Amino acid sequence: MARQIAGAEIERLIALLARLPGLGHRSARKAALTLLKRRTDLLEPLAAALAEAASKIVACENCGNVDTVSPCTICQDPRRDATLLVVVEEIGDLWALERAGVVNALYHVLGGHLSPLDGIGPAELSIGKLIERAVPPVKEVLLALNATVEGQATAHYLTEQLHGRDLKVTRLAQGVPIGGELDYLDEGTLAAAIKSRRTL
Amino acid sequence: MARQIAGAEIERLIALLARLPGLGHRSARKAALTLLKRRTDLLEPLAAALAEAASKIVACENCGNVDTVSPCTICQDPRRDATLLVVVEEIGDLWALERAGVVNALYHVLGGHLSPLDGIGPAELSIGKLIERAVPPVKEVLLALNATVEGQATAHYLTEQLHGRDLKVTRLAQGVPIGGELDYLDEGTLAAAIKSRRTL
Repeated sequence: MARQIAGAEIERLIALLARLPGLGHRSARKAALTLLKRRTDLLEPLAAALAEAASKIVACENCGNVDTVSPCTICQDPRRDATLLVVVEEIGDLWALERAGVVNALYHVLGGHLSPLDGIGPAELSIGKLIERAVPPVKEVLLALNATVEGQATAHYLTEQLHGRDLKVTRLAQGVPIGGELDYLDEGTLAAAIKSRRTL
Repeated sequence: MARQIAGAEIERLIALLARLPGLGHRSARKAALTLLKRRTDLLEPLAAALAEAASKIVACENCGNVDTVSPCTICQDPRRDATLLVVVEEIGDLWALERAGVVNALYHVLGGHLSPLDGIGPAELSIGKLIERAVPPVKEVLLALNATVEGQATAHYLTEQLHGRDLKVTRLAQGVPIGGELDYLDEGTLAAAIKSRRTL
């Protein structure tokens, strides 16, 4: 019974919007309507921003970040501590650390984590390049991977690969998050917090 | 402490995506990352689809629908029952009725509902045009407005405006939705369902 709503153009726009994470088909329709209603202040600028991103944004050949230049702005920044290399799973993790502004180092984006069941082995991640980069002046490789089973398995694998070099390999501390209430935390977090307890 | 993540281009893309309904700043970042990762199968097609929509999609001068032509495909369709004019608040409502395929009529999109507190009076809606269109061959005006206070107030106002013409003015039935369980329905719906009960 369903009929085509309007031009094939609108249907196509909705289908593409629905492929963005966080937008289902229903919200994609809503987004398309908003775009069509707000042509000059939203539709046209977004079309231009996407076209600009498509033409200008490149992956950094060095660390895997995205930027308008390669090597990226971070890799080229002389004020960064080049002795510390922070390894993350995804670009979003790099962004999260940069937003927090808690480390002034260089990064390496793996592009995911090891997941044999999904066919993701070491060759599918940017691990060769990491091994290549983990040489002086780098003195410490901080494995800032997710505290998930896959993240930790990947960290374990990388630790083995980097073993025997003149390098300190570290990982993020695990424990109670700031503002966290013990009552709401899972057993794993509580166990980690107890195990790594600190003397005051 | 927050630093700029990458080029101004990415920041601008995220800011624009965050203005779509259903996407907050966090999910806009995620959407931007997905777009940058899936350049050829998502970013470029979406940029093209938006540019095409911006250049081709117009509002129908007649009913307020959006399409690539004006009058729109529905207004031009000779197989539609031109004696029935279905009045809806938003284009999304028109799409919902078309998707359901439950009525084969012409439409009129008001562009919202009366809301004096928000400064939306009759002049802000497409009411003058509706009055103009509510003439023969139109025999029935179906006010398919939302079953909300504002929708019903708007229906009441339109009924008054259309009074005295040789027209049947109708509204959608209210009652228990198909598949609805009485236990989960609000009092208003139950009251409407009782009041409009039918003899079997």
